[in-house]
Amino acid sequence: MAFQPYQASMLALGQAPSVIRETFEYGNRRAQEIGRENVFDFSLGNPSVPAPESVHDTMRRLMDETASVLLHGYTSAVGAEPVRKAIADDINKRFGAGISAADLYMTCGAAASLTVTLHAILCPGDTCMTFAPFFPEYRVFVEAAGAKLTVVPADLDSFQMNLPALEQLITPETKAIIVNTPNNPTGVVFTEENLRKFCDILRAKEAEYGHPIYLIADEPYRELVYDDKTVVPYLPNLYDNTFVCYSFSKSLSLPGDRIGYIVVSPKMQDNRSVYAAVCGSGRALGFVCAPSLAQRVVAENVGKTSDLSVYRRNRDLLYNALSEYGYRCIYPDGAFYLWVQALEPDANAFCQKARDFELLLVPSDSFGCEGFIRIAYCVTTEMIERSLPAFKKLAEAYR
Amino acid sequence: MAFQPYQASMLALGQAPSVIRETFEYGNRRAQEIGRENVFDFSLGNPSVPAPESVHDTMRRLMDETASVLLHGYTSAVGAEPVRKAIADDINKRFGAGISAADLYMTCGAAASLTVTLHAILCPGDTCMTFAPFFPEYRVFVEAAGAKLTVVPADLDSFQMNLPALEQLITPETKAIIVNTPNNPTGVVFTEENLRKFCDILRAKEAEYGHPIYLIADEPYRELVYDDKTVVPYLPNLYDNTFVCYSFSKSLSLPGDRIGYIVVSPKMQDNRSVYAAVCGSGRALGFVCAPSLAQRVVAENVGKTSDLSVYRRNRDLLYNALSEYGYRCIYPDGAFYLWVQALEPDANAFCQKARDFELLLVPSDSFGCEGFIRIAYCVTTEMIERSLPAFKKLAEAYR
Repeated sequence: MAFQPYQASMLALGQAPSVIRETFEYGNRRAQEIGRENVFDFSLGNPSVPAPESVHDTMRRLMDETASVLLHGYTSAVGAEPVRKAIADDINKRFGAGISAADLYMTCGAAASLTVTLHAILCPGDTCMTFAPFFPEYRVFVEAAGAKLTVVPADLDSFQMNLPALEQLITPETKAIIVNTPNNPTGVVFTEENLRKFCDILRAKEAEYGHPIYLIADEPYRELVYDDKTVVPYLPNLYDNTFVCYSFSKSLSLPGDRIGYIVVSPKMQDNRSVYAAVCGSGRALGFVCAPSLAQRVVAENVGKTSDLSVYRRNRDLLYNALSEYGYRCIYPDGAFYLWVQALEPDANAFCQKARDFELLLVPSDSFGCEGFIRIAYCVTTEMIERSLPAFKKLAEAYR
Repeated sequence: MAFQPYQASMLALGQAPSVIRETFEYGNRRAQEIGRENVFDFSLGNPSVPAPESVHDTMRRLMDETASVLLHGYTSAVGAEPVRKAIADDINKRFGAGISAADLYMTCGAAASLTVTLHAILCPGDTCMTFAPFFPEYRVFVEAAGAKLTVVPADLDSFQMNLPALEQLITPETKAIIVNTPNNPTGVVFTEENLRKFCDILRAKEAEYGHPIYLIADEPYRELVYDDKTVVPYLPNLYDNTFVCYSFSKSLSLPGDRIGYIVVSPKMQDNRSVYAAVCGSGRALGFVCAPSLAQRVVAENVGKTSDLSVYRRNRDLLYNALSEYGYRCIYPDGAFYLWVQALEPDANAFCQKARDFELLLVPSDSFGCEGFIRIAYCVTTEMIERSLPAFKKLAEAYR
């Protein structure tokens, strides 16, 4: 084989234009031309509400009270024990899940939670599945771990998990399935009924194939639900072979602090060996330990969230207005995304057209599903209010 | 092939006892038995001097002055532009290296700098080399990137790079060589003469093989040198196809904050493609971006260091005393390690014997070299003073 000066797959990833990023950067250029206030950028899933005051209070107190070499020192590779204890206690209080500190592995955020988990379990020849539409980095992470991603097509009516299609596509090579609820990009929360049926299918297939099928619950949006009746079931309570991949990026508005965790369910088959493989994976990928100050900050702020009422107000405003203008919106129970059917079959063309009205939307194709758009409503309510006439005119342009 | 519930290699890594960690934990148990003040733990390479005051000043000011969603938001995947600019300016001021912000990629510390670089360039069938004795995680990182590590045996006289052995072992499959100066575990700084000869060999082999051989300069200890005359040459100035993998863990005593960077030399062949491969690699491994607050903190503290005079005092004290007691010590110009010949051929047996005197030392075997021990002198000067009689008795026990 000819000499390759670099990994071709990594070059491709590094050069691949992300539609989301490209849209965001178009927005920045456009803002320079016509003024920031005239551009309605709904491209990025960046939290738009500040971290709770208590986060900075904690940071200041830690700096005042903790010796520098401790505060800024390495923690154990799995995370500081008191930190894991505080998080486990909170999980158990909320979900009665019977998690202990020894089941938790602190990470540098949601992406790291996923890559560390995937590298711990996936072997060459394995398949990992997920449900469309899905966060496009899943493909990147699964393939970097040497496995194949199989995408279950979307249920275009409900955007719940498409279980008949899952049953058709699952094979003995399926080692893991990533489930993301509340969902990015749709904002849909999978119902308990949908999840219970899903777990029943997995258990039946585990029995049939004679090996575990891991459920990887990717749930950075767990706390971002807006109706009191909405329940996001805790998956380790429904299915034994579950990993929970969590991040505080959205709940505490700390995406830049890179802090999250993995739960290896205590009920998982070979729990201690799988947990050790997670440790080995984090080590091999170069994570060393999760940021130590951020570990202590989240431990002292467990159970708190940013003021999420802004997102709820934004959701209601957008959902009601766009529905009124004739758009088909999928009702979002959570996250901070609204999933809307494009007004022509080609979502990319629709998003280009929307730019004529200075609306920056993300087409659904990169999420593994055609004909929809994602609106990230983690923006100011005031921007949404100003954008509504543009959404109205866009709809009228298709009449 | 039988179903594997997890990656066997990751399980092995997760379960592998680290001698350093095991020694440290023995020390903690022993401290409970006989009192912390009676245990002389020289096992861990954790900075023992606080971060500069200005680090906390910067953090407090950033919290006061910067909007939460900016301060705690994602930065660009490669790192915030002003941060990279500040670091590039500092590098250029000190080394005249002609680095620009576009050549820098911010990382979550030294380990991440290495794994991201290695995954960017290494392909199956490639070999990466390093010089014994070496930081044992190099093997983990290289093998996780799908390549083979070839270790060049130590020069047991000088502990400079053993260049005749390199010339014998280098092959057309050699894609990269990791160089660590100031060195962990020896504390040795490679001389400019040694480095220049090394680069000449690489250039000759590049010409012979017809492809680049990357020099990966792992230099978290760059600022930890103790004699005014000691020069640590900046490798991009000596060799074009150079990566610099850096971390602020040691210079600013911030190991827990997980912050470092990669320089892809602007003179590197295919610089822009290699840089893009680095970006792809960071993305695939799940790094997203380096911690945002830490990025800003180091940018505002470039060129500063913790008070490194403590390490110098410790080095002088230990080196002089142990030499006087009859130990053969390799003179350390930098880092915070003293490399000492064991008083019997088996360094593990020697370290066990040392425990009789409550001295916790790390045997050299895990660094790829037999018959020596590493003393991490990033401890209090007062502990070193109290430990000296124990070192003396240990030497006497071998008379």
